[in-house]
Amino acid sequence: MPEIFPVLLCGGSGTRLWPVSRKSFPKQFVPLAGQGTLFQAAASRMLGAPGVASPLVITNADFRFIVAEQLAAEGIKPAAIMIEPAAKNTGPAILAAAAHLAGLHPEALLLVMPTDHAIPDIDAFRAAVAAGVPRALAGQIVTFGIRPDRPETGYGWIELQSAPVEGVAQKVQRFVEKPVLEAAEAMLAEGRYLWNAGIFLVAAKVLLDAVGEHAPDLLAPVGEAVAGARADLDFLRLAGGPWAEVRDISIDFAVMEKAANIEVVPLGTAWSDLGDWNAVWRENGGGMVAQGAVTAIDCEGSLLRSEVEGQHVVGIGLNDLVVVAMPDAVLVADRTRAQEVKAAVSQMKARSVRQAEVFPRDHRPWGWFETLALADRFQVKRIVVKPGAALSLQSHVHRAEHWIVVSGTAQVTVGDEVKLLSENQSVYVPLGAVHRLTNPGKVPVVLIEVQTGAYLGEDDIIRYEDIYARGDENGPAR
Amino acid sequence: MPEIFPVLLCGGSGTRLWPVSRKSFPKQFVPLAGQGTLFQAAASRMLGAPGVASPLVITNADFRFIVAEQLAAEGIKPAAIMIEPAAKNTGPAILAAAAHLAGLHPEALLLVMPTDHAIPDIDAFRAAVAAGVPRALAGQIVTFGIRPDRPETGYGWIELQSAPVEGVAQKVQRFVEKPVLEAAEAMLAEGRYLWNAGIFLVAAKVLLDAVGEHAPDLLAPVGEAVAGARADLDFLRLAGGPWAEVRDISIDFAVMEKAANIEVVPLGTAWSDLGDWNAVWRENGGGMVAQGAVTAIDCEGSLLRSEVEGQHVVGIGLNDLVVVAMPDAVLVADRTRAQEVKAAVSQMKARSVRQAEVFPRDHRPWGWFETLALADRFQVKRIVVKPGAALSLQSHVHRAEHWIVVSGTAQVTVGDEVKLLSENQSVYVPLGAVHRLTNPGKVPVVLIEVQTGAYLGEDDIIRYEDIYARGDENGPAR
Repeated sequence: MPEIFPVLLCGGSGTRLWPVSRKSFPKQFVPLAGQGTLFQAAASRMLGAPGVASPLVITNADFRFIVAEQLAAEGIKPAAIMIEPAAKNTGPAILAAAAHLAGLHPEALLLVMPTDHAIPDIDAFRAAVAAGVPRALAGQIVTFGIRPDRPETGYGWIELQSAPVEGVAQKVQRFVEKPVLEAAEAMLAEGRYLWNAGIFLVAAKVLLDAVGEHAPDLLAPVGEAVAGARADLDFLRLAGGPWAEVRDISIDFAVMEKAANIEVVPLGTAWSDLGDWNAVWRENGGGMVAQGAVTAIDCEGSLLRSEVEGQHVVGIGLNDLVVVAMPDAVLVADRTRAQEVKAAVSQMKARSVRQAEVFPRDHRPWGWFETLALADRFQVKRIVVKPGAALSLQSHVHRAEHWIVVSGTAQVTVGDEVKLLSENQSVYVPLGAVHRLTNPGKVPVVLIEVQTGAYLGEDDIIRYEDIYARGDENGPAR
Repeated sequence: MPEIFPVLLCGGSGTRLWPVSRKSFPKQFVPLAGQGTLFQAAASRMLGAPGVASPLVITNADFRFIVAEQLAAEGIKPAAIMIEPAAKNTGPAILAAAAHLAGLHPEALLLVMPTDHAIPDIDAFRAAVAAGVPRALAGQIVTFGIRPDRPETGYGWIELQSAPVEGVAQKVQRFVEKPVLEAAEAMLAEGRYLWNAGIFLVAAKVLLDAVGEHAPDLLAPVGEAVAGARADLDFLRLAGGPWAEVRDISIDFAVMEKAANIEVVPLGTAWSDLGDWNAVWRENGGGMVAQGAVTAIDCEGSLLRSEVEGQHVVGIGLNDLVVVAMPDAVLVADRTRAQEVKAAVSQMKARSVRQAEVFPRDHRPWGWFETLALADRFQVKRIVVKPGAALSLQSHVHRAEHWIVVSGTAQVTVGDEVKLLSENQSVYVPLGAVHRLTNPGKVPVVLIEVQTGAYLGEDDIIRYEDIYARGDENGPAR
């Protein structure tokens, strides 16, 4: 039995599900349907299936702690969490995974999966993968296609030689890029087409050969980035120098649309890329969909979502609308124009609207924090520190901080003094004092921080020691 | 020259402008259009006009500190702030004002005004009042009518004998209650009708006589409630015993629709009761109206409002919608069905949705507070204490409190200790400790309070002393 390594792609940062998905916290990490996130569902999809190894994750530096946290929450120990120094699209990312695995496991099969799609039927998915294994071992690149049920212009399509049959791999005639409506209608009627879900199974060596044939310029710099990768805590950081030289290209353009040895197996399950709020509405059954604290009076064909506890959404007489409410941002859109959310986010970004990209909750290796109140000269934050975690040893030039522990036990260092604070105790960190916060316990520490001072930006930080090796990054950190 | 006393009615708590207007903070106190609130605009409307005295306000106990604060902010010293022990509709409220004024100023004229309407042209309003004065002195009840510009079914109408003429009082033929559309269209076409704005000018004695003739049962209990009224700080609290016996009735039913001595002067100005969000949209010029932090793409005929800093609203492809966003509540409604907001609030109330009635910011005599975070076992509040104000001397059975001053200077009593805290200083109030917070300074004190404990309700309070005499009220207070 060959070893199958799920390769999880999660460097993307889609904005079409704004405000829930933002650059700093994209949709694959957000609970959207049911329990868990799309990323967690993808990571668990092959868990425990025969011959399947631990997944390899490819992501960027910003998301690495979210990835680690969400894997840990599912009890998944990854084969590796590979960090791209810069986004280069799917081609180089997948090639890096193949190069890494080929070195360690020469016979490895890669099962490449986007992590921002929904696939409800795991058994059907596994059956399709099992049907693809012999073909992948025979040197084919095996993609998995979705049976279309509408003339969708937002997806790529795959042409087969004849009508698809469950569990049977067929030669791919060609890949069709996002079509116009007439072409999509024709393909739907024709019955020989599947949607391209971006999932494929391939032997590491076969993929390397295909890249060597169709995009040979990628091989050397990606190979050097993998060879020069360095371990960083639980992460594998690709070498930035060679990576900078790598061409930005999708795996479709680099390989799939050019290679001859491509076959497709139909995936006998529902599937959605949850590409916009209209798709989320559809995945939830269509009609009037209410999620969270919602009062809907006489509404039809609409998705009404309240994202947080303590915020109530009322809809009256709505037709075909999407309403997504968060305390810092609200979207109301014609459902049939949901794809324009991307343009709205660009507009906001151009006007420097903070909510365009920044999520209210900020994830850090040690836990997360969120701002509860921000005003002239003061800021109030809720800070949650994971068991065993520690903030860096740091000081601030412009602000003093008060910490009040509301649950758990914190170990606090201020200057030369170290003390334990339990629930209901507080400490004052004067301006300029070197301090550190650690959670030595077994449960999370929750504390309220009140900052006072003339300047309260995250970049007012001098870091002396950090167990998470964050010295080489720019941007705010603590 | 007779003395004219504006009588400001502001006991109402309209829900049709939810979520901005809620039971605990209704629309007359909310800044809705331009600077200041509708209540402040009403209180200022006759300010400084010849012969006009300070206004008399009639409100309920819940709103008395908001009334006092908003008058003070405009520099208005009221003749009295009269507190109704219970809501009894406009009839008893106006009669109480008349009885009170008749005792002090036998020749007084009352200019009765709702305080939740918008009247942009003060000069036109004053001219109409001036035209009404001789008729009021001659024993007439002089109402003021609005020239209709649409077949509005949401207002009462007034029938005249002939077409209205600016500055001329005419006999009222009859009052027409909210009509059906066909009747409204006929009245609009007919040209002899005005809208009833609920404003009127009348001599105190004339009103008492009219009540004596048409609703005589009101005279004795209202008279006793006024005679037994007691001063309470800056307020005049009507006697609850006799007031409980008073019939609940509007001034329209009690007097206006029955009396023969009624005349009407047309108000030569725009006017709106801002009765629902559709009216707010109309008052703001119609079309696409954006208020606050809003990004609107291809929206028409819609009102998009973001009420607080830090919350951004995005609209895409919207037609004839109302969107009103607050951090704790969001309304999205078909604009033409805006009056159904009232029904939605009733639905929420039936389901015990807190946001149906409770406004996030809670006004108290000493200032206000709002909850920033509420979770199991802790709550974070922002508290603002006005200069010279003090919270009651109190203790809690179930919670401890941390106070951190972020601006201003607070005087804090905990047990036997009294100390001054300035910006950046903090204090801990243990569970059970008797404590008080006072602002001895000239600027507001802003502080962050972190509560910890098993029960954090506002009713966990034992009050020992209170400069605002709040011992005789039920409900949460501090």
